[in-house]
Amino acid sequence: MDYREAGVDISAAEAAKVRIKRLAQRTVNASVLSEIGSFGGMFRPDLSSCPNPVLVASCDGVGTKIQVARLLGIHDSVGYDLVAHSVNDILVQGATPLFFLDYIALGKMDPELVESVVSGVARGCAEFSCPLLGGETAEMPGTYAIGDYDLAGFIVGIVDKDKALPQGVRKDDLLLGLPANGLHTNGYSLARRVLFETMGLGVHDHLPELGTTVGQALLATHRAYLAALEPLIERGKVRALAHITGGGFPGNIPRVLPAGLGARIRRGSWEVPALFRMIQKGGDVSEQEMFRTFNMGIGMVAVVAPADLHEVEHSLERRGETSLVIGSVVEGTGVAFE
Amino acid sequence: MDYREAGVDISAAEAAKVRIKRLAQRTVNASVLSEIGSFGGMFRPDLSSCPNPVLVASCDGVGTKIQVARLLGIHDSVGYDLVAHSVNDILVQGATPLFFLDYIALGKMDPELVESVVSGVARGCAEFSCPLLGGETAEMPGTYAIGDYDLAGFIVGIVDKDKALPQGVRKDDLLLGLPANGLHTNGYSLARRVLFETMGLGVHDHLPELGTTVGQALLATHRAYLAALEPLIERGKVRALAHITGGGFPGNIPRVLPAGLGARIRRGSWEVPALFRMIQKGGDVSEQEMFRTFNMGIGMVAVVAPADLHEVEHSLERRGETSLVIGSVVEGTGVAFE
Repeated sequence: MDYREAGVDISAAEAAKVRIKRLAQRTVNASVLSEIGSFGGMFRPDLSSCPNPVLVASCDGVGTKIQVARLLGIHDSVGYDLVAHSVNDILVQGATPLFFLDYIALGKMDPELVESVVSGVARGCAEFSCPLLGGETAEMPGTYAIGDYDLAGFIVGIVDKDKALPQGVRKDDLLLGLPANGLHTNGYSLARRVLFETMGLGVHDHLPELGTTVGQALLATHRAYLAALEPLIERGKVRALAHITGGGFPGNIPRVLPAGLGARIRRGSWEVPALFRMIQKGGDVSEQEMFRTFNMGIGMVAVVAPADLHEVEHSLERRGETSLVIGSVVEGTGVAFE
Repeated sequence: MDYREAGVDISAAEAAKVRIKRLAQRTVNASVLSEIGSFGGMFRPDLSSCPNPVLVASCDGVGTKIQVARLLGIHDSVGYDLVAHSVNDILVQGATPLFFLDYIALGKMDPELVESVVSGVARGCAEFSCPLLGGETAEMPGTYAIGDYDLAGFIVGIVDKDKALPQGVRKDDLLLGLPANGLHTNGYSLARRVLFETMGLGVHDHLPELGTTVGQALLATHRAYLAALEPLIERGKVRALAHITGGGFPGNIPRVLPAGLGARIRRGSWEVPALFRMIQKGGDVSEQEMFRTFNMGIGMVAVVAPADLHEVEHSLERRGETSLVIGSVVEGTGVAFE
């Protein structure tokens, strides 16, 4: 007997590593001191403009969006999603990315599948100037079905202690919503259940109200808001950010508000995209459940001082970013809808 | 329909979070600026004794050792393994830990299971002074069977650029082997196949040659070599380290040797533990396959200058660490056994 007969193919793993290495090389910058394949990835941060450096780290997955990727046979976009999600999570603390690592576990080592996933990871890493410093690819027969896999991403960023968010949030500050691109990476178990089972739709069904197929609408990539928000954070024009991920509005906005303050959201202030309404109607999902499961079309909420609103909106507009005032900070707790 | 009916229980996730938070609090130090549950964990490194800081990061899992944990219903030890494995991986670069994050994905959210796993992670984090800064717990019905789960860990450490390893490895340097505690976290798919299927053993079978049950022998925790090796690295007495993980001796020792140099290993220089011999015999596994799949009883190999051998052995002994000269650095490439 050998390792291969037991379901683990070290040669295939080596082939996957070669492909990963090639992709990762496109993401390196001068701070990266090691090659992919070292025991630990080595990164020398430039601390020249950061007198009080704070490292900000986050870990996340893309959930069962992977099952949609499998149905379509398209695996790069979930790789990109993983990076975009992570970039947003540390942006909430005011941090910009330093480097990224990924974990890919699969039932049967498939160098082409791994290459496809990592090509999306590398695309995101290059876009957000966040080198892919390392990672792990694990073949785990039994835990994952053949063809199935899971992904986790780890990001480390940096922020100067004095610029870390949230900072100075007050009553009457405005909540600015930035549009999401579809479901991002949350709520897929519910969305898949409703669309595929209750409604009996298939990934290739083209729906006029979506302007595309069900599969393409579900696979739309997670947007990162780094480019739009970084200059505003740098100038101190954003007091807090909430990345609308698992838990939706009520699960995420209160996390960045000080004790004694809550959020009031004006429900008609933006148009909830058709995909969410379709899931809501098709699955007879309550409005409350929708808002604690999905982003409902708002991927990031920025807390802005009323006096800064005009400048912030103008800056976002110059970078091609739409924004809408969707509510305000009020005395109280949690999220109230009106 | 709601998210819970679709297989994702946000309330159970919240309950798990409360337990994780309590465990993580035991691992914090003065550098940790955030609480578990922040979008990004915030860590302010002490750079006072590190003029040229290099961050060293690594990501890993524990493979199908989880399946042994499931058979025994013991889930904390794989959490500890995850941390110990990661600590060793960055130690290879000479780095000491700053912080740790974990990813736990499971088929059905089970706050007690999550608490058990994280209690092991937290035990490791506390032991290695490596705060648990954050993580992700993902319920993924469909990807994982009910009761099944996967784990990934992510560590960030620090080393001064001038002290980073490998450094100065030369021909005739000695290879010092440090004993492993069982299989650590590699080769479980092959070990399980041979022991449980070919040999028909059960986890509760007590075997005299192991001095314990098959399950306990397989679940033995991954040793970390930080405490034993850190003082030697600090004094420049170690030229390179190789963590014997997936790929075994041939997959790991050459990774830390300069071009043109290889390793010669004297096979009789240490006693291969009974568990490995049992797998080899029971599965009729070739010696070569054993050495590229398992650690064969050596968890870490240190490359040491001949002139430093006595001092290194003495220092290790004072810390209760056994070590054996198992070979040397030779001209050539790869690993040769004699």
